[in-house]
Amino acid sequence: MINMLFGVDTKKDNDWWIGSNTPNTNNLSKFESLLFQGNGYLGIRGTFEEHYLNEKRDMFILGTFDKFQDEPTELPNLPDIVNLEIKINGKIFNLDQGEVTNYQRGLNLKNGEVTRSFDWKFDKEQFKFEFRRFVSMANLHLFVSKVTVTPLNNNVRIQIKSGIDGQMTNSGTQHLVEGSKRLFRARFVQMQTQTQDSKVKFALTEYHRLFLDKVELSLNPHLELNRRQAFANYSIGVEKNQTLTFVKYANVYSSTDKDLRYGVGRDSIHELEHLGRTSYASLLAESSRVWEEQFWQKSLVEIKSHNNKPQIAVNYARYQLISNTPHDFGMNIGAKGMTGEGYKGHAFWDTEMFMMPFFTFNLPQYAHNLMEYRYLGLIGAVKKAHQNGYQGAQYPWEAAMPIDAESSPLWGGADIITGEPMKILSGESELHVTSDVAFGVSQYLRATDDQKFAKRMGDEIILQCAKFWASRVEWSTRLNRYQITDVIGPDEYKEHANNNAFTNYMAHWCMEKGANIIADLRQNDMATYTSLDKKLPLATLFRDLIEKASMMYLPQPDAEKIIPQDDNYLSYKTINVQKYKESDNTSEIFKDFNLKQLDKIQVTKQADVLLLLKLFEDKFSTSVIKKNWFFYEPRTTHDSSLSYSTHAILANDLSLYEQAFSYFEHACQIDLGTNMQSSVKGIHLGSMGGIYNTVIEGFGGVRIVEDNLSIQPQLPKTWETLKYSLIWQGVKIKVLATQDYFSIVSDSKFKFIYHDKDYQVEPKEKLTIEL
Amino acid sequence: MINMLFGVDTKKDNDWWIGSNTPNTNNLSKFESLLFQGNGYLGIRGTFEEHYLNEKRDMFILGTFDKFQDEPTELPNLPDIVNLEIKINGKIFNLDQGEVTNYQRGLNLKNGEVTRSFDWKFDKEQFKFEFRRFVSMANLHLFVSKVTVTPLNNNVRIQIKSGIDGQMTNSGTQHLVEGSKRLFRARFVQMQTQTQDSKVKFALTEYHRLFLDKVELSLNPHLELNRRQAFANYSIGVEKNQTLTFVKYANVYSSTDKDLRYGVGRDSIHELEHLGRTSYASLLAESSRVWEEQFWQKSLVEIKSHNNKPQIAVNYARYQLISNTPHDFGMNIGAKGMTGEGYKGHAFWDTEMFMMPFFTFNLPQYAHNLMEYRYLGLIGAVKKAHQNGYQGAQYPWEAAMPIDAESSPLWGGADIITGEPMKILSGESELHVTSDVAFGVSQYLRATDDQKFAKRMGDEIILQCAKFWASRVEWSTRLNRYQITDVIGPDEYKEHANNNAFTNYMAHWCMEKGANIIADLRQNDMATYTSLDKKLPLATLFRDLIEKASMMYLPQPDAEKIIPQDDNYLSYKTINVQKYKESDNTSEIFKDFNLKQLDKIQVTKQADVLLLLKLFEDKFSTSVIKKNWFFYEPRTTHDSSLSYSTHAILANDLSLYEQAFSYFEHACQIDLGTNMQSSVKGIHLGSMGGIYNTVIEGFGGVRIVEDNLSIQPQLPKTWETLKYSLIWQGVKIKVLATQDYFSIVSDSKFKFIYHDKDYQVEPKEKLTIEL
Repeated sequence: MINMLFGVDTKKDNDWWIGSNTPNTNNLSKFESLLFQGNGYLGIRGTFEEHYLNEKRDMFILGTFDKFQDEPTELPNLPDIVNLEIKINGKIFNLDQGEVTNYQRGLNLKNGEVTRSFDWKFDKEQFKFEFRRFVSMANLHLFVSKVTVTPLNNNVRIQIKSGIDGQMTNSGTQHLVEGSKRLFRARFVQMQTQTQDSKVKFALTEYHRLFLDKVELSLNPHLELNRRQAFANYSIGVEKNQTLTFVKYANVYSSTDKDLRYGVGRDSIHELEHLGRTSYASLLAESSRVWEEQFWQKSLVEIKSHNNKPQIAVNYARYQLISNTPHDFGMNIGAKGMTGEGYKGHAFWDTEMFMMPFFTFNLPQYAHNLMEYRYLGLIGAVKKAHQNGYQGAQYPWEAAMPIDAESSPLWGGADIITGEPMKILSGESELHVTSDVAFGVSQYLRATDDQKFAKRMGDEIILQCAKFWASRVEWSTRLNRYQITDVIGPDEYKEHANNNAFTNYMAHWCMEKGANIIADLRQNDMATYTSLDKKLPLATLFRDLIEKASMMYLPQPDAEKIIPQDDNYLSYKTINVQKYKESDNTSEIFKDFNLKQLDKIQVTKQADVLLLLKLFEDKFSTSVIKKNWFFYEPRTTHDSSLSYSTHAILANDLSLYEQAFSYFEHACQIDLGTNMQSSVKGIHLGSMGGIYNTVIEGFGGVRIVEDNLSIQPQLPKTWETLKYSLIWQGVKIKVLATQDYFSIVSDSKFKFIYHDKDYQVEPKEKLTIEL
Repeated sequence: MINMLFGVDTKKDNDWWIGSNTPNTNNLSKFESLLFQGNGYLGIRGTFEEHYLNEKRDMFILGTFDKFQDEPTELPNLPDIVNLEIKINGKIFNLDQGEVTNYQRGLNLKNGEVTRSFDWKFDKEQFKFEFRRFVSMANLHLFVSKVTVTPLNNNVRIQIKSGIDGQMTNSGTQHLVEGSKRLFRARFVQMQTQTQDSKVKFALTEYHRLFLDKVELSLNPHLELNRRQAFANYSIGVEKNQTLTFVKYANVYSSTDKDLRYGVGRDSIHELEHLGRTSYASLLAESSRVWEEQFWQKSLVEIKSHNNKPQIAVNYARYQLISNTPHDFGMNIGAKGMTGEGYKGHAFWDTEMFMMPFFTFNLPQYAHNLMEYRYLGLIGAVKKAHQNGYQGAQYPWEAAMPIDAESSPLWGGADIITGEPMKILSGESELHVTSDVAFGVSQYLRATDDQKFAKRMGDEIILQCAKFWASRVEWSTRLNRYQITDVIGPDEYKEHANNNAFTNYMAHWCMEKGANIIADLRQNDMATYTSLDKKLPLATLFRDLIEKASMMYLPQPDAEKIIPQDDNYLSYKTINVQKYKESDNTSEIFKDFNLKQLDKIQVTKQADVLLLLKLFEDKFSTSVIKKNWFFYEPRTTHDSSLSYSTHAILANDLSLYEQAFSYFEHACQIDLGTNMQSSVKGIHLGSMGGIYNTVIEGFGGVRIVEDNLSIQPQLPKTWETLKYSLIWQGVKIKVLATQDYFSIVSDSKFKFIYHDKDYQVEPKEKLTIEL
C-alpha cells in the first residue's frame, strides 16, 4: 500500500513527470485524459498525433457552450488540430506495426509539455522519432508541436499530412456547422465554423515549417479539402542520417474571446504569422516562464517522503487544477475540466467544496473569478428558483452559462428492473448546492478578507441563497419545526430523503449567515445595506431568516451518537458493500439494485454525514465524529471521486493515520491509479482539489475556524517533511512541518490557532512549535 | 489485359461470388463499398462486425433526406446495428491480433449474403469463427446476422456485446437527435430517434438468440446505455469443441414507410417478436427466393467466355442496381446508391442515361417508378425554373426529395491557385439534365409502349422540359439563330461553354419531341390534350417549340468532320493527358490546373461529343463518328465513371474490338479493379448501368432506333456465347449470340431490325441469323 500503485510510469528523480515507458495503444482513453494539456482557456486531450482505434480526440474552449436540440448544453468538441499522418515510403507510421524500442512518452507537469521518443523499425528500415508539443500559457490561443524523424539505414521519402479535422463530434453530437476552409497565402490552413444554436464563431489556423537538419525548406503544401477537413500535404526526400523536423503552429480563436481585435479569422491568421517566426524552443520557454512565475512560485507544496509519489500526485493535482481553471470570470471549472466529455463541461458543487481551497490559499484572483461566476450566475439561479415556485437564488446542480437555470441531464443509465433509462433527479432535488455556493463565498471572504467583493457581490449571493432556503423550508405543525423533505443529499443513492442531515445543517447555516450579514450591514455599512435592500427587502428577509433558522430541524446524534443521515436511513436494511467498494467500475451497484431499491438500503455513495462533520467539526465532539465515522464508513461505496479526501482528512483528525494515508492513496489513485476505466471521459477535478486538500488541510492541518486560521500538522509516518505556502488575508506564509515540529515564516504579521491557542508570527521571524 | 485485373478475389467455378481470401484490414473502405448489402429500402455498407481504424459504417433508408444547417440535404447515416464485440477470456477479438488462417470472406451475389470464416489463434488458444449476414429481400426492414465461435483447445468465457450505436455521423454531420433508448421485455433493445430538420422518425430494434451447440440458452442481456448507444451484453462459458451461436435479428422502421401500422416503435418490436422465432436459415431462404423469382428469373445475362470475370462483373452490376433501386416511386437511385456517403444519396442524369436500360428491358415496373419520381419531381423542377427566371421544368442537377428545386453542393475541392474551395456551378449551369430526363421518359415509352404512363405523366414531363428549353435558348440577331451559352456540358472541365454540342442537340431534340407530342395528342387524344392544355397552353407552346427548334444552332462537323464540343474548344491548346488517364486518383488534373485554366485547354473529362454520337448514331455517318472518336478519345481523361461504357459501345460499333473490350474492362475495374481509392465513398451505380449497357447494347447489339428495336450482336473475341432476355413493348424475348450467328425466341410475335432490315419472330419459334 505504501508504494502508491500508479497506472502511469514515474521517475524516481523527477517529481514533475508522469508517462509511460511502454508503447501501449490499449487504454488510450485513460492516457488521453491523464496527459491533457490546457491553459484555462484552451484544453486538448492527450491523444497521439497519429490515429488509433477507440481514440477520443477532444478540444474545448471554456465558456463556448452550445445546445444541440433537446440535449443539455455542453462544450462543443472543436475540430482537431493535433493530427499528424506520417508516411514513410508510402507506409503510414503507426506504433502497432513494426518494432518500437527505447520508447518514452510523458507529460512534464512543470510546463505542460508532452514528449514522446522512440526508435522504430519497419521492413528492416530504422528510424528515430521524437514528438513534442504544448499548449501555451503565454499565448492562450496557441498550440505548437514538433516532430523529428531520422532515417538510419537508407534515403526515404517522407510524406506529412497535417491539418484541421472537423469530423470530430461530442460522442456523436455535432455542435458545429460545416463552415468554411481554405488556404491563405499558400501556407496558412484555416477553418472557420460556428455552433448551431449559440452561434459562437471559431477560427482555427495552422502553419507549418519544415527543416532538413538545420536548414529550413521553402515548401508550400498541397491542400486537401474533404468534408469538414482541411489538410496540408508535404512530401520530402530525406537522406540517411538526416533529420527532418516538422513544426506545427496552430491557434484557435472564438467570438467569446475578450481579446478579439478584428474578428476570429483575421486575428487567428495575424497572430500566427507573427508567432510562426519564433522557434518551438522560444515559444515553449515563454510558456514555461508563465507556469513558473504565475503558478509554481505562488503555490509551494513540497513533500519529502519515502518515495516521490505523493509529491508527483500533488504536483499532478495542481497541474490539472491550473490547466482547467478559467482566467476569466464568466466561466467555471467543469467536474472533468476540459479533459474529456464527461459531465459536458458543467460545474458542480465540486468547485466550492473541493477545488476552492487551492485557489483561495494560493491564487486568490482565480478564486475571485470563480466566485464572480456565481455572482453572474444569480441570473440563472433566480430564474431556477422562480421556475420552481421559490424565492431568492436556487443554484443549478449542473452549471454551464451563468444565465442558464439548470443544465442537468434528465436521463442516465439503464434501470435493471424496467429496462428504461433512469430519471436523473439531481437538477430538481439536489438542493444543497445552493448552500455550498454560499459556503464557498463565505470561506473565500474569510480567507481573503476581500471586502470589496463582499460588498459588490458576495453578500448578495449569500443573501439570495438564504432567501431561497427561507422560501423552501417546510413548516411541520405536528412537529413544530421547519424541515426539508424530498431531497437528494451528497448520498445520491437516496432520491427522496427527508431531512437529510447535511442539507438541513447547511440550509440552517446559510439562513443564519444571511441574518448575520444583514445585521452586520445595518450596523456597519448602510450604503451596501441600502443598495441590497432595494433588491431584496432586508427587514422582512431578516425576520424570516431569524425565525426559520431558529426553528429549523437539525438532526442530533442519537443514543449511539449517530447522526441519522435522514429520517428513515437508520431503519433500512444493511447489505455487504465490500464488493462495490472494491469494484473498478463506477455505478457497479446499479447492476444489482435499481434506484427504488437503493432508496431503502443502508448504503451511502459518498461522504454525507461525514462531510457535514468535516465542515462543522468545531460543532461536534470528537467522540461523535468517531462514532459516525465507524458507522458510516463501512456503509459507503465511495462511488464518487469526492468521497476519499473527506474520509482521509477526518481519519487524520481522528488519529486513524493508516486509514488517512490509505484514503489519500485512494484519492490519488482515482485518476493516477491502475484502474484503466476510471478516467475515460476525463479526470476528476474535484478529486484533484481533494488531493491538495488532504495534503494541506489534512496532513498540513490547515483549517478555517470561524474567522481564524488553525494550523495543526500531522504528517503520515512515511513523510519526513511537508513545506507549503499560503496566503491568509493578504499575508503570505510558509510552513515547514516535520514529524516533531512545525515552523512558520510570514511576510507580515500573522495570527493563527494551534490546539485552540492563539499564536502570532512576526515578519521575517520564524516561529517553531514542537508537536 | 484479357484477364480483367480485379482487386477482389473471385472463384473459377462460381459466377456469383466476390470476396477476399486474405484477412486484409487495410483498404477497408473499398471492401465496405463493394460488399454492400441492400434491398432498395435499407442499405448497409460491408463493414466488419468488429471495429477497425478508418472503417466507415453507413446505413441508410432511401427517401429519408434531411438538411443539416446550410449543407445540402442528404440521407442521414443511421445508428449502426452491424456491430458485434466478441471478448474471449476478456480479450477483444480482432483480425489484427493473433494468427488468422483459412480465411475467406465474400458476398454471394445471388442472394446478398455476406459470409466470413477463419481459424483464429491467440495466446496459444485456437478458435473457429464463422460470420453470416444478410439484408432481407422478403422483409425490407430486416437485417439478420449470425456468428458461431468454437474453442478448440480449452474451455473459455465468451462475452458478446451487440447493440445500436447512434454515434455514427455523415462524416461529422449529425442529422439525428439523441432520441430514446431502452430494453423491452428484458430482451428487445430499441432506439428511437428523428432527423433534426425533416423530422423523419426512426425506430431500430435488436433481438438476440444464443445457442450452445444446438441448445438454445435462455439468457437476458445486461443493458448498457451510453450516449447515443444501447448495447446488450452477454457472458457465456463455452467448453472446448462446443459451438456458441449468436443470432442477431435487427430491424429498422421509418416514419416515411408506406407499410406502417401503429408507428415506428411498435411496428418494429411487433415484427421482430414474430420474425425472431424463425431461424436464420429460413429467413435467408425466404429472401433468396425473392431474389431468384423477382429479379434473376427476369433479367437473364449469361456469358460463356475465356474466364468468368465478365459474367461476375455483369452479375455484380445487376446485384448493385437491384439492391440500390427503390421499390417505390417517391425516390430515385443515388449516384452511389446507398453504398456510401458520396454524392449524399442524390440522383443525377446517371439514372436516365446509364441505369434505365437495365430496368426498362428487365424490370419495367422499376423503370416506371423511376419515371414517376421525375413526375413528382416536376414540383421541384418548376420551382427551379421559376427561381432562375425560366418557364417549364428545369430538373435539378442533383435530386433528393422530389419537391426540392436543387440539391447540389456549392463548394468543392481546393483551387490550387487561390487556396479557396472551388465553386461548383453544376446546379446552376449543367442544364442538359433536363433533356436527359425527357430522353429517359421517351426511351421508357418507346420500350414499354406504356400509354397510361404517357398520358398521366410522361407527356407532361417532356412538354415541361421542352417549355424550359424554349424559355432558355437565346436568340442571336447577328447569327440569326437560337443558341445556348454559358453552360456545363458532360465535360465538366468547361464551366462556361457556349453552344456545347451535346447540350444543343439534346435541347433541340427535346423541343422537337415536345412539338411532336402536341401534334400527336391534338390528332389522336383530345382528352389528354385538353387536360394538359390547362396546365401549359399547348397552342402557344407548340408554335414556340416549332420556331425555336427549327432555328436552333446545331454544331455541324467541320472540314475535318469534327463536331466542335463548343464554340471555342477547337481553338484551345492541347496538353498531354496520358498522365491523368493513367492516374488512380480522381481529379488528378486539379493538382496541376485550376478550373479557370482547364476552361482553356483541349481536354475533356468524359464522353461528351461521343455520347451525343452514341445517342443519335442514326443521325451521323460512320466516318463522322470515327473521326470524332479519334479526335476526342485522346483528349479525354475519363475522370468520370460514366465515360468508359460509352466509349466501349461506340468502339464496338466502329469495329475497334480491342478498344471496345479494353473499355469494358476499364468500366468493370472502376469498382472491382485494383484501385483501392476508387470506391471509398461508395461504388458507382452509373457505371453499374454502364457495364450492363456495354454487354447488352454494345456486345449484344441492342439499340432503340426511333420506335424500333435493333439487334446486331458482335461479341468480344474471347466470348463464346452471350445469352440475354429482355422485354420489348410487353414481349419477352431471349437472345443467344455467338461469334457466328444469333438466335431469338419470343413469347409473342416480335419485330426487330438487323442491319437496317426488318425481321419478325413468331411465338415459340426460334429465329437464327448468321452473322
